[in-house]
Amino acid sequence: MKFSPALETLIESLRCLPGVGPKSAQRMALHLLERNRSGASVLANALRDAVDRIGHCQRCRNLTELALCEICSDTRRDQRTLCVVETPGDVLAVEQAGGYRGCYFVLMGHLSPIDGIGPEDIGLDRLQEQVETQGITEVILATNPTAEGEATAYYLTEMLGSRGIRMSRIAHGVPLGGELEYVDGSTLMHAFTGRTPVVRS
Amino acid sequence: MKFSPALETLIESLRCLPGVGPKSAQRMALHLLERNRSGASVLANALRDAVDRIGHCQRCRNLTELALCEICSDTRRDQRTLCVVETPGDVLAVEQAGGYRGCYFVLMGHLSPIDGIGPEDIGLDRLQEQVETQGITEVILATNPTAEGEATAYYLTEMLGSRGIRMSRIAHGVPLGGELEYVDGSTLMHAFTGRTPVVRS
Ligand SMILES: [Zn+2]
Ligand SMILES: [Zn+2]
Repeated sequence: MKFSPALETLIESLRCLPGVGPKSAQRMALHLLERNRSGASVLANALRDAVDRIGHCQRCRNLTELALCEICSDTRRDQRTLCVVETPGDVLAVEQAGGYRGCYFVLMGHLSPIDGIGPEDIGLDRLQEQVETQGITEVILATNPTAEGEATAYYLTEMLGSRGIRMSRIAHGVPLGGELEYVDGSTLMHAFTGRTPVVRS
Repeated sequence: MKFSPALETLIESLRCLPGVGPKSAQRMALHLLERNRSGASVLANALRDAVDRIGHCQRCRNLTELALCEICSDTRRDQRTLCVVETPGDVLAVEQAGGYRGCYFVLMGHLSPIDGIGPEDIGLDRLQEQVETQGITEVILATNPTAEGEATAYYLTEMLGSRGIRMSRIAHGVPLGGELEYVDGSTLMHAFTGRTPVVRS
């Protein structure tokens, strides 16, 4: 005995959401059908729309429905300074902290040889090309202070360090082992202010 | 600064799911777009399909895409015994416990005067009509052992108690204050076996 086929399909589909197990998927499905069908319709449309329209910015790789995201196309921002982060959530966290007026490069991940994620999977070939061709003068490495984030920052230092651009790693202040997007704005700005130059070994 | 409009819409829409706050909605949206777009498409279709097709069984009010649900249309089941439960999840819990071969009536809630939920909102007029016209001989009251569930069972006892049908309340064994659908199968069957007759006051 199960629920009806369409309801079982809905419950199963809800499990694609992170952190949603069988019991909470069931609770969500019943809640939507019994109490919030209009919400379920709105969610269906939003998912469809997001999947169809949201891609990656041609320049910084952030998620956007535009060819060039709002930050990359904002001429008031310093196009020659790039802050390298792991995720779109990190961009939002830095923006919400305020004060940074350069642009970004969003890796959409970090180097992880054990998972088969190499430099091209996180766009480092495109980053290198941008640095070579677009007059970048400063790169701020704001990957997470985790083992993979540090390894990625180290790799970037090696990759870009000989090109005469200023490179820095955001300061400690972001708790070690923590994730950038969950850090409060003042801690994050402190980390930006206290960033230290990195030198190629 | 926010995410792009389509992404903001998706994050906002995900908050219609119970237990999903702003941070987890953001995490879900980014996860779907970065790592599971096919899952997001499947979920969009499942939601659309569920909203368009799933209604209530004409007889027992359970959620189904059929006019008459699989249980109500199963001629091997005892159509003259009704188990009254609060939610579709409760039907599933009783079915999974095994052993019950009658039919159901699903209130899709419970009496709650403080929330303006009266007898007709939980289908009691239709239940009364069924009992009068369809030869029901036994009604098992399996509402939750909460204040509202007990009040609903009491109301049903008053409403149906003078018609010469057997009425019973499932036994203690379901933990007081607990919810039926989270009880293990053997406890639930024990509660069925030990059900006690209820007498109209
Ligand atoms: Zn961009
Ligand atoms: Zn039915």
